[in-house]
Parts: sequence; structure tokens; C-alpha cells
Amino acid sequence: MKTRIYNAKIITMVKGTGILEGEVHIKDGRISFAGTKEEAGQIKDTPVWDREIDACGNIIMPGFKDAHTHSAMTFLRSYADDLPLKEWLYNRVFPMEAKLTEEDILWYSRLAILEYLTSGITANFDMYMKNEANAKASEEAGFRTVLCGSINDFGGTVEEIEAEYKHFNNYGSLISYKLGFHAEYTTKREILEQMAALAEKYKAPVYTHNSETMEEVQGCIERYGMTPTEFLDSIGMFNYGGGGFHCVHMTDKDLNICKEKNIWIVTNPASNLKLASGIAPVQKMLDMGIGLAIGTDGAASNNCLDMFREMFLTTALQKVSIPDASAADASDILYMATSGGALAMGLTDCDTIEEGKCADLIMLDLHQPNMQPLNNIAKNIVYSGSKQNVKMTMVAGKILYEDGKFNIGTDAEEIYAQANERIERMKRQ
Amino acid sequence: MKTRIYNAKIITMVKGTGILEGEVHIKDGRISFAGTKEEAGQIKDTPVWDREIDACGNIIMPGFKDAHTHSAMTFLRSYADDLPLKEWLYNRVFPMEAKLTEEDILWYSRLAILEYLTSGITANFDMYMKNEANAKASEEAGFRTVLCGSINDFGGTVEEIEAEYKHFNNYGSLISYKLGFHAEYTTKREILEQMAALAEKYKAPVYTHNSETMEEVQGCIERYGMTPTEFLDSIGMFNYGGGGFHCVHMTDKDLNICKEKNIWIVTNPASNLKLASGIAPVQKMLDMGIGLAIGTDGAASNNCLDMFREMFLTTALQKVSIPDASAADASDILYMATSGGALAMGLTDCDTIEEGKCADLIMLDLHQPNMQPLNNIAKNIVYSGSKQNVKMTMVAGKILYEDGKFNIGTDAEEIYAQANERIERMKRQ
Repeated sequence: MKTRIYNAKIITMVKGTGILEGEVHIKDGRISFAGTKEEAGQIKDTPVWDREIDACGNIIMPGFKDAHTHSAMTFLRSYADDLPLKEWLYNRVFPMEAKLTEEDILWYSRLAILEYLTSGITANFDMYMKNEANAKASEEAGFRTVLCGSINDFGGTVEEIEAEYKHFNNYGSLISYKLGFHAEYTTKREILEQMAALAEKYKAPVYTHNSETMEEVQGCIERYGMTPTEFLDSIGMFNYGGGGFHCVHMTDKDLNICKEKNIWIVTNPASNLKLASGIAPVQKMLDMGIGLAIGTDGAASNNCLDMFREMFLTTALQKVSIPDASAADASDILYMATSGGALAMGLTDCDTIEEGKCADLIMLDLHQPNMQPLNNIAKNIVYSGSKQNVKMTMVAGKILYEDGKFNIGTDAEEIYAQANERIERMKRQ
Repeated sequence: MKTRIYNAKIITMVKGTGILEGEVHIKDGRISFAGTKEEAGQIKDTPVWDREIDACGNIIMPGFKDAHTHSAMTFLRSYADDLPLKEWLYNRVFPMEAKLTEEDILWYSRLAILEYLTSGITANFDMYMKNEANAKASEEAGFRTVLCGSINDFGGTVEEIEAEYKHFNNYGSLISYKLGFHAEYTTKREILEQMAALAEKYKAPVYTHNSETMEEVQGCIERYGMTPTEFLDSIGMFNYGGGGFHCVHMTDKDLNICKEKNIWIVTNPASNLKLASGIAPVQKMLDMGIGLAIGTDGAASNNCLDMFREMFLTTALQKVSIPDASAADASDILYMATSGGALAMGLTDCDTIEEGKCADLIMLDLHQPNMQPLNNIAKNIVYSGSKQNVKMTMVAGKILYEDGKFNIGTDAEEIYAQANERIERMKRQ
């Protein structure tokens, strides 16, 4: 498949470059050219294009990366709102999750993929169970997913994590896998030490929920006399880097550990608000040069998978909480939502629009009132952008969403019907 | 024009009623029937419909009301971000506003109307200058606008406010006008006392920006030994009710005055975050039974006119700031964004879907991934809804927006072109 997109405003996300007026060429899932019309005209062996797309002056940019999510939790959207985190998790989420079959996870992952596409998300970093179904949903759809281990006291063994690590890193070009466990507060020391040993064995980064609530941090201090970040670091968990999801309640010492050990922080602002967990000190993390990304945390706590909302929240919450209206500006946020997200989950060739990179990109419609006038396009995207502006979402060179229509191999209406039938069955069970 | 919408899930917003499966009939701009299919079948003199719309099981509900906005400030979208309120207002906004012509305001109001429609907003409460242009934009478009006086030390006289009050309350069915002034901190005592006298003369409510920043409250205490709410009340400003926009920094005494004097509070969460002003104590206001509505504050500070984002922020910020994940639940928020907004701005016949009310309504598409499964439709709208779900926006029985197409008499592309040309001229001036 060879595609040429012309007449575009290209945000390459290559540091130090502005908006490039020109075209993007895509061959076999990768970007073969990104430059001006004039530069394109000098290319000698122009192929016969399968499709030429007039971008009509719209934005072409790397797709957003949902760097922490639980896709299949779409089944619990609007099912358990307005509850504190522990009650939400133990009394509502866990009992319903116990009823989930592999087939359920397949369908609810498909539902999540539809939603990611509408929001211009081209890859997700997914932590859930029954990963075979999750991987199948993405592979079939043509969507890119990095799976994350989610072992804890209630399920899974370190041996299974190792088996998944080998299996899903040889699954196919769209699927990869990172070592991970659910959280310190749900996982006993013995398992955590086994996880650290696994990280050592594979010289691999490890990812986990970290310091989402004050209660979690206090519990860890009671257990180990250390914060979760300190404790996990003390047992060698992050000797090859990794990442923390949420990281709302972090001490300066915690942040220094993140900086020193290359631990990415994935902020989840909507979920942290909705569960009353708090506001992560993102500006401080930016100042320290810690790697940052943004995640939705899935539909059970958010309740949607909308990177525009997350981007606005990420900056707006810094401004109000510091308080400093100049905090976390649009360019930092746009980086977190695209390149930062890609690098956080190890997708080192999905972070920019450059020759040789994966063609995971989106077209944002500027011909909408929320994008006018064009005083500053990056600010328009971060402060005013919405799913309404997502005109096209492409993963690995294949258009999966365009002008409101999906192209993922499964009919959207069938997915909605299955989503409703299956949750009704679980409610009855 | 006679329209029948059938096969709908109707959220009437009549207190105590749930979702009604049925149809809505519209004649001459008003709702002539809302009920079940069976009830509709018993109507004797069924008219010849100009249009029959199959809602395909989607939501029909009252349109959202943007209860505090500055429409024409779309010209400053993404022009002056990341600045504290005073610097933003005095150094960036006021100098550019001085260059605005009536024709500019007409075009930027048109741009705002397009954006309102995409977000399912059917009426706005607009505080700006050169109201003739503002009214013209709405009247021509078929959009409903309540204008609000905006006198201050830098422009306007109380005589002009009185003239506008008479003029715009006899302008046409889509336009009305409320007494108002910009804010205590921008308006000297003499003018404020004249405003209070005008309120007395017409036994009319008065609206103003109130307690948006701590600095504003402290300034008023220094000037008058009272908070803005106390001071304005002490000179009789609210003897016939009225409203306060923002109301971020309110004392218990202030809130008691609001409750006693029927002063509506319009919260503007996105703007208050973005300008680092703070978080209004909305749950406390709800607990006290104060009338509440939601506004965007316009594109200069927000930067978009999106009631879905405002609804989510209104609840999510209560949850995190109290902190209590059960605060400000979806039904309260939905009421504020629709009926509350209508009543706040005096639109007593645009608040619900009932026989005789104005046909200011919207269709929300449930056939989108962010609305599935249908565990709880009201929560889906408030926590997951987006402009992507707005399938149709109708004002006074006329469809102004449907399936992404506008019908306001002026071409959208022409509005975008004018919006860009005019701001470029102002930047050069």
C-alpha cells in the first residue's frame, strides 16, 4: 500500500522544527518521505500511488499514544461512578471483572479500539488480564498495542509474566510486551522480588501503578518504611528503567529516583480527578526533565478514552494547582501526548513523522470552528481540540478511521450490540 | 414548519422523570407533544409533517445553555495563552479589543455560533460590547442569545444600558437582554449605584463577573471593607436577583446572600483553571440550593466553547478538591448545563422538553464508541460525552446543525476566512 498525503500542515514532532507545509509519503507501513512540495518534486522514482489524499491544508501529525489504559474496562463505563478508589476497585470493579471471559475481553477491547481511533490515538499501553484476547483484538483491527504485565496477589505468576514476555514480543509487528505488575499495594514482597529478578534476567524495564493515592503511599511506608518508589527501587525493580502510572503523590526523593533510573511517568489526570486521588506535580516533573506521557486509565474510571480531554486537563490542572497560568505549555503537552507516549512504551519508531518511522499518524481538521482563527495551531490543538477534529487515523500505513467511518474488520454496530449484551449477562450472573 | 422526531430516548429534564422512549412533535418553533409512541398514536389531528426524523434510538434532550460567555472573543483564541488573568486582560485582551469594529464582532460572533452548535448549545448568555452586531449574528443565524450589559469605567454609560435594555427586549423572539456590568473591580462606585437604581426602576435582576480571583476579592475588601458580593448587595444591586459569573472565591456569607437574593451562580471551570484563578465550591453551592449554571467564558480564556468539557470539569474538580469522589453527580451537572442555564438567563420556556416549551433541543448520537455500553445514559453524557455525539442542534424548531453541516445562512468557510483576515489586520494595526 502506497499513499501520498499532500497539501498538509505537518507537525513532525521532531524537536526544533515548526509546522512544515508539504506532503507525507507512506510505503509498506512506514514513512518514506516528509517534506515540502518542492522537495517531493525532486524525488526520482515516484511510485504509482494506491491513494493520493488532499489534506486540504489540515494537520498531519503523529498519532496520540494512550500510555496507560485498561482497554477492556469499557465494559464498566458509567457502571461504578462517584465512588472512592478503594470502594470502586474492591466492591465494584473486582467482582465484575471476575465474570469476564476471554470473549468478553475481545469485544470490549474492540470497543476501546474504536474509541481510540475517534480520538486520534494510534497506540495504547494496555494493562489488563487475558492478554491473548487483547492482542487478538488489536492484531485483527490493525491497531498497535503494547501489553503490560499486571501480576498481583489475586492473579498471575512471575512465570506467566515471563512466558507472556517471550510470546507477545514475537507475536507480530503491531504487538509488543513490557514487564509489569499491578501495584505495590496489591502485590506481596516475594512476587515483587521475583519481578525484579526477571527484570535483571532480561535487562528490561518494569512498569506499574505507583503512588496513585495518599493511602497507597502511607500503606507502603507502614509496610516498608519507604514510599513505593523508594521501596521498589531498593529491591532493584528499576535497574533497567521502566515507568510509573499515575504518580500523583511523589516526594522530591521519588522524583529524583525517576530521573536517575529513567522511570517514565504517565499522568492520568481525568481518572485522578474522578476518583478524587489528586493532581500530579507535572510541572515539577517537566522541570526535572523526567520522561512524561499521558494516559486515560481506561473507561471504568475516566470514563472515556479521549486524549484531547487529557491534554487539556494535564496543562490546566498544573496552572490552577501551582497556581501559575504559564505552567505546562501547549508544546510540552503535545510532546507528552505523542512522542513522549511512544518512547515511554518503547515504541521508538512511532514518535515522529520522519523517513523510516512507522506511519502511525492522524489528520486533524482545521476546517472546524473550534480551530479558527489559526492564531497558534499547537495551542488550538491542546486547548481547543476535540474528537470532532479527527478526520483520519492511520496505523502502520493503514487507514483505520476516516470521516467517521471505521475500518477495523468488525462492524461497529455489532461491537455495540455485543458490549450491551455481555454487560447485561454479567449483571445477571 | 412541523417536525416529528420519533424512535427517540427523550431526556425531558422535567424533575422526577427518567428517560422517555417515544417522540417529540414540533410546530411553529415550539414543542406540541412529547410522549410515548402509544400516546402519540392517540393524537387526533395529526398534521402533515414537513419532516419526520428517525432518531434511531438516540437521545433527544434540551440544548445546553452557555450561561456565561463572550462570543466575539473567538478572535483571541490561542492568541494570549499561558498568562495570569490581570496580564492577560490588561496587556493582551484590552489592547486588541480596542481595534474591534462592529463588523469584526459580527463575524467572530458568527464563528462562536458555529462552535456552540457543534457542542449542542442552543442559547448563550453573552456579555460583550457593540451588542447590535452580536444580536444581528444570532438573529440572522436563528440562534438564541441573551445579551448582558457590560458597562465599566472604560466604556458605556448607565443610560446606554437602559437604552439597550429597552431595545433588545423588543428586538425579536430570539434576542433578550439583562442588566449587567463588567465587574466591581473595573467599575467605580458611582456607576454601580446608578446600576442599582436602574435595577430598582425596572425591578430587574443584575448580572456581573464576581469573585473570579482572590486579588479581586482582596481589592474590594480594601476599597469597601466588604467582599464584592457583600458590597454589591449592600448598595441594593441584587434586590431583584441576578447572577454572578465565576464566583470562585466565595465566603459562606457570600453564598448565603446568593441563596437569599436569588443570585444565580454561573461556574466557568475551564477558564478558572487556565487562568489559574481557582476552583469554585460548586458542591457547597449545590448543598445550599443556590441556582447553578455553567458557562465557557468564551474562547479567549477557555479556549473553546464546549459544554461537554465544562460538564466534566464541573464535576471532576469538585471530586478532587473536596476530595470526595461522590461529589457533584451526573444528574446535578446535566441540570446545571441545561435547565439551570436556561433559568439563570431568564429563558423560562427553554428549560425542558414539554408541550408549549420552545423547541431548543439536540440529538446526541449513542451509536458512537464513547457512549457504549448503555450502562447509564446520563453518566455517559456527562463523563464520556463529546461534540462527536452532537448529531443535531435545533433552535426554535429550526435545525441549525445536523450531521456536521451548518444551516445558519452564512457559509462556514467564509466565516473562517474572515476570522483569519480580521485578526491579521488587528495584529498589523
